[in-house]
Amino acid sequence: MATQLSQFIDVYKAELETKLQTIITTIAAPDILIQAMDYSLQAGGKRIRPMLLFATMSAFRKNPLMGMEAAAALEMIHTYSLVHDDLPSMDDDDLRRGKPTNHKVFGEATAILAGDALLTHAFKVIAQSKEYSNEQKVWLIDWLSQAAGPAGMVGGQMADMEGEHKQLTLEELEYIHKHKTGQLLEFSVMAGAFLSGATEAQLQHFQTYAKHIGLAFQIQDDILDVEGLEEKIGKRVGSDVNKHKSTYPSLLTLSGAKEKLQEHLSQALEAIEKTNTDAELLKKLAHLIADRDQ
Amino acid sequence: MATQLSQFIDVYKAELETKLQTIITTIAAPDILIQAMDYSLQAGGKRIRPMLLFATMSAFRKNPLMGMEAAAALEMIHTYSLVHDDLPSMDDDDLRRGKPTNHKVFGEATAILAGDALLTHAFKVIAQSKEYSNEQKVWLIDWLSQAAGPAGMVGGQMADMEGEHKQLTLEELEYIHKHKTGQLLEFSVMAGAFLSGATEAQLQHFQTYAKHIGLAFQIQDDILDVEGLEEKIGKRVGSDVNKHKSTYPSLLTLSGAKEKLQEHLSQALEAIEKTNTDAELLKKLAHLIADRDQ
Repeated sequence: MATQLSQFIDVYKAELETKLQTIITTIAAPDILIQAMDYSLQAGGKRIRPMLLFATMSAFRKNPLMGMEAAAALEMIHTYSLVHDDLPSMDDDDLRRGKPTNHKVFGEATAILAGDALLTHAFKVIAQSKEYSNEQKVWLIDWLSQAAGPAGMVGGQMADMEGEHKQLTLEELEYIHKHKTGQLLEFSVMAGAFLSGATEAQLQHFQTYAKHIGLAFQIQDDILDVEGLEEKIGKRVGSDVNKHKSTYPSLLTLSGAKEKLQEHLSQALEAIEKTNTDAELLKKLAHLIADRDQ
Repeated sequence: MATQLSQFIDVYKAELETKLQTIITTIAAPDILIQAMDYSLQAGGKRIRPMLLFATMSAFRKNPLMGMEAAAALEMIHTYSLVHDDLPSMDDDDLRRGKPTNHKVFGEATAILAGDALLTHAFKVIAQSKEYSNEQKVWLIDWLSQAAGPAGMVGGQMADMEGEHKQLTLEELEYIHKHKTGQLLEFSVMAGAFLSGATEAQLQHFQTYAKHIGLAFQIQDDILDVEGLEEKIGKRVGSDVNKHKSTYPSLLTLSGAKEKLQEHLSQALEAIEKTNTDAELLKKLAHLIADRDQ
């Protein structure tokens, strides 16, 4: 990872984590609910979505901190989705990023409520922002609820659950990923571009970039499930195979999946060139996503 | 129930249900998710929250249909909360309004996702409305996310779960109800008043009215759990006692609870007088809530 990106991530990850902490600890709610929300928000991870948002703003030479509230809302929604997806009736995962999952620590009922609370409060964070105009807030909420809702992330998770124990086509697998993870990644980039005053044409190129890194991200996820190191990825290697999930390697072979990953990376880099912005960090983020080992 | 209110409810309940149907069936999402969302939305009930919103608008002699999108969002959020509350790890209810609960029909995973989808899409319904200005949308989303979130409904449900199998004080019981059901009822009335251009003083009187009918509603709920008819209330009579839940009758005796109910009804009616609006329907709704047998 290049130093410039590494420094950028260090700085803005810390800023984001401070902001999330402030948001959560100032909510007047039962202690245990706050703790459960905080536990999963702190469990951290790479914060790829906020970083994409910040890096997009920096491509326009804007101050990334102006995107903080959108980034925080985004990370809260991503986090809620992990908490609910890990539940026993869903993916039934005990570990997430190497730590016990929310319901393992707080119990199922509290995990469901913590997820509901993170989702709901994300919209409040945007609605009460002092940074954005009403027009910007409505744009952000409209897109975020689209990306996270039944026609986006929740629909993708539903399709994923339905697809378990079935042999999927590549088309069905892409439907799942475009919805389950793709749309929120697209929102990350588009929100950064929108808040920076991007033109309609620029927005479209950013969206294309995000679509391709979204798919690259997912393919790499599947590859890591085959060849990753358990201590690095923080969950059991081979867990997809054990659940009889269709994956890119299972549909395309491992080398076919790697080839597909490179294609998406190239298309992402091509799209970003067309934005005519100072997008060095976004290019490096694309490489980081495609080459990551965790 | 007076004829005027009865007609009003018939007309606007039908309008609301048509709107909800349109909203749900036009979402591009997996069929099973749409079915699960639709199932619980159609399970209906009294639609008290939308009716409060519509009746408040009519107190200002505004067209209630201008509040339709806020009312639909409100009902979607109320419905999601019922779907999640009924889950095995929460209240574990098999019946809701006399019909099998969502997870009994669709399974737990789908019920969780249908709830998540209803919650998320509710914000989209407001954000994409053609009826409201951006300022109105932000106001609605800010209040709705407050009322439904960790400092509101979700926090109330958390406190309710924590309070099971414990002897609560009246204060603790009121905390639960003010949050679990009260805030969303307050939002119903305040949204109607806000969309009608209420003054700050009027908003406060409407809020006071809503606070008291919220508590009256809950006390009557507890009373019905003791003396209601199973086929009318659509769940098992005595289910609170069986779950060792603290209730108004258990804390105040049955006659004490009935007295408290009348106090809240009087205070609601007093507050509504102060709004200086044509609030005949809201008064009748208050009586309906306090005297209902289901």
